Amino acid sequence: MTPQNRHSAGMRDKPTQINPAHWPLTDLAAALPATTPFVGPEAIERQTGIPFAARLGANEQRFGPSPLAARAMAQAAGQAWMYGDPENHDLKAALAAKHGTASAHIVLGEGVDGLLGLIVRLCVVAGDSVVTSRGTYPTFNYHVTGFGGALHLAPYAGDASDPQALVDLAQRMGAKLVYIANPDNPMGSYHSADTIRAMLDALPLQTLLILDEAYIEFAPTGTAPEIVPDDPRLIRFRSFSKAYGLAGIRLGYGICTPDLARAFDRVRNHFGLGRIVQAGGLAALSDNAHLAQVLAGSGAARARIAQIAGECGLRALPSATNFTCVDLGRDGEYTRQVLANLAQSGIFVRMPSAAPQDRCLRISHGTAADLDLLAAALPRAL
Amino acid sequence: MTPQNRHSAGMRDKPTQINPAHWPLTDLAAALPATTPFVGPEAIERQTGIPFAARLGANEQRFGPSPLAARAMAQAAGQAWMYGDPENHDLKAALAAKHGTASAHIVLGEGVDGLLGLIVRLCVVAGDSVVTSRGTYPTFNYHVTGFGGALHLAPYAGDASDPQALVDLAQRMGAKLVYIANPDNPMGSYHSADTIRAMLDALPLQTLLILDEAYIEFAPTGTAPEIVPDDPRLIRFRSFSKAYGLAGIRLGYGICTPDLARAFDRVRNHFGLGRIVQAGGLAALSDNAHLAQVLAGSGAARARIAQIAGECGLRALPSATNFTCVDLGRDGEYTRQVLANLAQSGIFVRMPSAAPQDRCLRISHGTAADLDLLAAALPRAL
Repeated sequence: MTPQNRHSAGMRDKPTQINPAHWPLTDLAAALPATTPFVGPEAIERQTGIPFAARLGANEQRFGPSPLAARAMAQAAGQAWMYGDPENHDLKAALAAKHGTASAHIVLGEGVDGLLGLIVRLCVVAGDSVVTSRGTYPTFNYHVTGFGGALHLAPYAGDASDPQALVDLAQRMGAKLVYIANPDNPMGSYHSADTIRAMLDALPLQTLLILDEAYIEFAPTGTAPEIVPDDPRLIRFRSFSKAYGLAGIRLGYGICTPDLARAFDRVRNHFGLGRIVQAGGLAALSDNAHLAQVLAGSGAARARIAQIAGECGLRALPSATNFTCVDLGRDGEYTRQVLANLAQSGIFVRMPSAAPQDRCLRISHGTAADLDLLAAALPRAL
Repeated sequence: MTPQNRHSAGMRDKPTQINPAHWPLTDLAAALPATTPFVGPEAIERQTGIPFAARLGANEQRFGPSPLAARAMAQAAGQAWMYGDPENHDLKAALAAKHGTASAHIVLGEGVDGLLGLIVRLCVVAGDSVVTSRGTYPTFNYHVTGFGGALHLAPYAGDASDPQALVDLAQRMGAKLVYIANPDNPMGSYHSADTIRAMLDALPLQTLLILDEAYIEFAPTGTAPEIVPDDPRLIRFRSFSKAYGLAGIRLGYGICTPDLARAFDRVRNHFGLGRIVQAGGLAALSDNAHLAQVLAGSGAARARIAQIAGECGLRALPSATNFTCVDLGRDGEYTRQVLANLAQSGIFVRMPSAAPQDRCLRISHGTAADLDLLAAALPRAL
């Protein structure tokens, strides 16, 4: 029997309904679109043949990880023959201490991206309604689609997510999950803790709030609601990829009820966080001095981007994150052209996907050298 | 509205069927058992209060990663502010070159564990039949259960998996997936490439073979069937955790048809492999001299374990892996007691879960120093 004749009809006694084009996939998997959440800068470089001199598109934290974290990871590299602790005991304990709660409230995973996949898997069956903002974080949508959920999109209000619209849509659709990033990606706007609390109180009974706080360290004091770890109405996600400068190790965590945390333990990749990741995360958490330097550097970059925009007659939107949107004042097609021009000059930036926010460039808060390159390239690119 | 009253009956106009104990989980997620595939050695250390002096239970590769890989990872640590390339372009290309195929045939993931989760997700809906050997790799079973699949277990024949029994059971149950590890974990036995090819040819039409070759580098030449990357009847998995000594970075890969590889791209965590992981994997692949040393060290350990067993009047089973089973000749309860005694002496080993294989201790091929500790502790533990 060869692979070629194996899927021919009538070869076996037992009749089958196998579609050779899709075998062995489930109907859901066979129907999934081929889109990916993001094309990486390396893929763009391979396409254009032009290496990026300034990497300002992925909201990476350009000032780098804590030297303590870099050293801890380098030391762990020689010990990489050992699996990491599957319970992530020490890292969980450190995060619990940071947030004044118990380890039972902490879930760890391969980035917030990985955790978003798990929470969707835990809560959504095919056809369940899920609500998010049109144009916000595409990886959440990717996972909802991946598990067969029905996405319902609330428009932004101005350049911010619209909590009332999200609540209304969740009510109308009987949503299982509502996603909000606060501060917002891709716009950099934010809502106060009071607004998030009011949103939580207004949510329909059957809805779990996913509060993505990947950028929270960059936001003004008062943006994050107080942590109430026994509140079953929400799960909050935090990242080591942004303020902690560890995008390259993929480490994120959630804060939720112990019941929900235990559910993650029934589906997660138990040895998914390696030893180097655990060492890096633990060391990063201990270095508040470095974190303060990062926040200062990000603030300086925010001011510099506003200045560069102003010199081009453009407006930088306010930002509570480590990136700033610059309003080009035209449409998405124009923005895409400017973005392509910048790529030709070795500058990697991104743009929001949905109108009218796609009139903006989204520029990560880079180093002074990065922004010098941007300042030189932007006038030509416009 | 408080979290407490939110799930009380009659609080809302819209009636719901929410069970507060399980909310917000799907029925499947709510019904999942709390078992985890493995308790890690760190958890055992926390329970007993005795640190392990010899870590011989997780089939880690005790001789360590290539120094080139350790250096590459240490260098990448300072660059960990950058996400890894989500397409894993360079690592895929290196693996494709190693196997004489194209990158389109390679899928990468967070260990074989992560990839097993994805292949089950892609192929299994609730109630689908899946076949594996009773007592073999529990993480596969964990994922099948996690997606609602119905597990059917074929017994071992002697101390090896039984390809004919697996095929027969797959035929009888109309299995979607059949799993076989070759060489086998936990027994260390193996089948020839001819046997695996015959198994593939005998499989029912609707069945995909998952061929887990995590230990293949330790097996005799002729154990791995020739790579036929366009064969749609199977997916093979390989690991960096064993021969390459990189369990602590979680990196595994699959070889399959481009169609199936594209399906992984629709569900995987696109940025799931970090920059340090990619650097380590790439460097490890380049160091064949180190790999040869590892295989020699593993062979010496195999002989030493047989000697230690013999001195205790016990028999070591043949091994095509980096671990050896030692037959204690009694039942699982006795083995468990010996294992606990060894833990008290600071020796971490494991044992097969199913009878009659649970008459054995499973001992990883450690360093000479590790095995000196074992030689001293085993007579007392018996």
